[in-house]
Amino acid sequence: MKTNQHATFGSRDGMNYAPKSAKPTPVCAPGEFTIAAMALDHGHIYGQCNGLIEAGATLKWVYDPDPAKVEAFLRVFPQAVAAASPEDIWNDPDVQLVTAAAVPSERGPLGITAMEHGKHYFTDKTPFTSLEQLEAARAAAARTRRKYMVYYSERLHVESAVYAGKLIEQGAIGRVVQVLGTGPHRHGKGRPAWFYRKENYGGILCDIGSHQIEQFLYFAGCSDASVAASKVGNYRNAEHPEFEDFGDATLIGDNGATCYFRVDWLTPDGLSTWGDGRTVILGTDGYIELRKYIDVARGGTGDHVFLVNHEGEFQFDVRGQIGFPFFGQLIRDCLDGTENAMTQEHAFKAAELCLIAQRDAVLVTK
Amino acid sequence: MKTNQHATFGSRDGMNYAPKSAKPTPVCAPGEFTIAAMALDHGHIYGQCNGLIEAGATLKWVYDPDPAKVEAFLRVFPQAVAAASPEDIWNDPDVQLVTAAAVPSERGPLGITAMEHGKHYFTDKTPFTSLEQLEAARAAAARTRRKYMVYYSERLHVESAVYAGKLIEQGAIGRVVQVLGTGPHRHGKGRPAWFYRKENYGGILCDIGSHQIEQFLYFAGCSDASVAASKVGNYRNAEHPEFEDFGDATLIGDNGATCYFRVDWLTPDGLSTWGDGRTVILGTDGYIELRKYIDVARGGTGDHVFLVNHEGEFQFDVRGQIGFPFFGQLIRDCLDGTENAMTQEHAFKAAELCLIAQRDAVLVTK
Repeated sequence: MKTNQHATFGSRDGMNYAPKSAKPTPVCAPGEFTIAAMALDHGHIYGQCNGLIEAGATLKWVYDPDPAKVEAFLRVFPQAVAAASPEDIWNDPDVQLVTAAAVPSERGPLGITAMEHGKHYFTDKTPFTSLEQLEAARAAAARTRRKYMVYYSERLHVESAVYAGKLIEQGAIGRVVQVLGTGPHRHGKGRPAWFYRKENYGGILCDIGSHQIEQFLYFAGCSDASVAASKVGNYRNAEHPEFEDFGDATLIGDNGATCYFRVDWLTPDGLSTWGDGRTVILGTDGYIELRKYIDVARGGTGDHVFLVNHEGEFQFDVRGQIGFPFFGQLIRDCLDGTENAMTQEHAFKAAELCLIAQRDAVLVTK
Repeated sequence: MKTNQHATFGSRDGMNYAPKSAKPTPVCAPGEFTIAAMALDHGHIYGQCNGLIEAGATLKWVYDPDPAKVEAFLRVFPQAVAAASPEDIWNDPDVQLVTAAAVPSERGPLGITAMEHGKHYFTDKTPFTSLEQLEAARAAAARTRRKYMVYYSERLHVESAVYAGKLIEQGAIGRVVQVLGTGPHRHGKGRPAWFYRKENYGGILCDIGSHQIEQFLYFAGCSDASVAASKVGNYRNAEHPEFEDFGDATLIGDNGATCYFRVDWLTPDGLSTWGDGRTVILGTDGYIELRKYIDVARGGTGDHVFLVNHEGEFQFDVRGQIGFPFFGQLIRDCLDGTENAMTQEHAFKAAELCLIAQRDAVLVTK
């Protein structure tokens, strides 16, 4: 069956975005890689679990202090057992990885606890809300030799983005010169209180900006970058004074490629999905445009890839054609001690740069 | 007849972009507004003359020291008389406006000469290559009370851009928060030597970046802005060491709106027109995307306007529907002493900001 990546939890709400792969390909036998889900604060936990389970993981436990969240989770993943406390998970030697979508400010500390109990950790983005948390996690990863991996879903769980990576690898656009991303999101209603508290969500560049910087480092093949400028603003939500509904940043990579991205919570009500996310990758010999979630005014589907190079103009509609190789690679990385899904340094570097962009941002609204 | 704005001089070459209006509407009687064309270095002179003539101007003279350029010009505009020297034009009291497309570094001085002879001046962009030239022109405009107007063609001579201005004016997207422009251009072959000399062309942000900043100020309704960061690079043309094939900048407007733009000379051979120029205007209540010259991989026409607001997703194909009101307004402004086409301060401010962005740019390639 061809699945629609927005179908499970409603396409109008990025908060509960939980893609299912058209091509699930388990990389291990049942029971060979056991996981637990904790901290169900953000709906991304469903996407994180879907991805891992499709790739062969066995979901054993779920824990959250809120019984309603656990109940909802068990309706989707009835194979899980509700743990009475986090200790059920920490003390179970079967559990190799804990996946979690805590309130952003709690993601770092939770990950360190997981690693100290010998578990790999796979958190929703953004992985940290302060540089201190990042440094503590770097130290814990080195000390425990466990992974602190991040669900940068806007690349890892988007087939058009996966396909763009393949095109670049094949040399379709030459050397990558710039990655330009726009990540509009629907604000909507019913957000929890922490969503509006800067101490908890970390700021817009720290939060949804982390996707963008991760994509830059990946598509441009940078291992480091500097933030040249960044901005934040609140244009439309004065009733939430700590909220930022606009942010942008521009970066210069260590290999001379550059990045610009804009993120916002200004998706208008009339858009038929949660956000018209685009990525434009400019190379010396062509460019790629991704219309990730919608080809606006042309119907509601996403994953449209446009390629222009010296040979011509091409369009590929890749929904259901590519799958999400990250999850299987992550499982194998955990089992084999490799770094094929994503290096630890890459995951941390994207986090570091979004924290720096946030820290140094100019406030453009008063 | 519905005209194609690329038809006259070839759609593959932005250098000779010379749109004709589907709706020419003269604003004055024949002979009421007399113009002369000088300095035919850039093919934009054809667009400048087309626009003015369609709006009612009478083209009396043409002058260039190169007889081949004059001959080619006279084939398109046989009504003009070849002047023997610039003095024929300077000393003709009939001539109210001189339009010119000199080598960029000569545009400022030529304009001052024109104004001192009592003529209004309408130059191809970019209007200056140094802040000193700009200050001299500011002083001359104040002293002579003549206009120093600029052919910012990527808005003034693009129907989709004109239409976007109307939509914003009508409140279709609320308050404008950001203008994001990409201006890729085809490098091609056969460029004159001055095109590669920084002293002459002024740098990529000064040159084609001027379009982008003008659009920002106009669409966002800013009267001033600061440049937060800018970059230039040469990724693909090492044989021209003073050439820049990449540039970008981000600005903060005096009303809190912001701008990011990228310009480049990296259009790949396979694109069916000279550049996939886009403008995305984000508002508090919707956004507009212009696909100015092509809707990539969907046929060769341009002027596609996409509007998303609280009411829904809309597409307008406006080629041949809108016309180019700037030219008639400019003629009336000259005749009536008004500033409806563009204020002098707006034309100068866009120039100033592109010169500052250029001066302060970080070089990202070594």
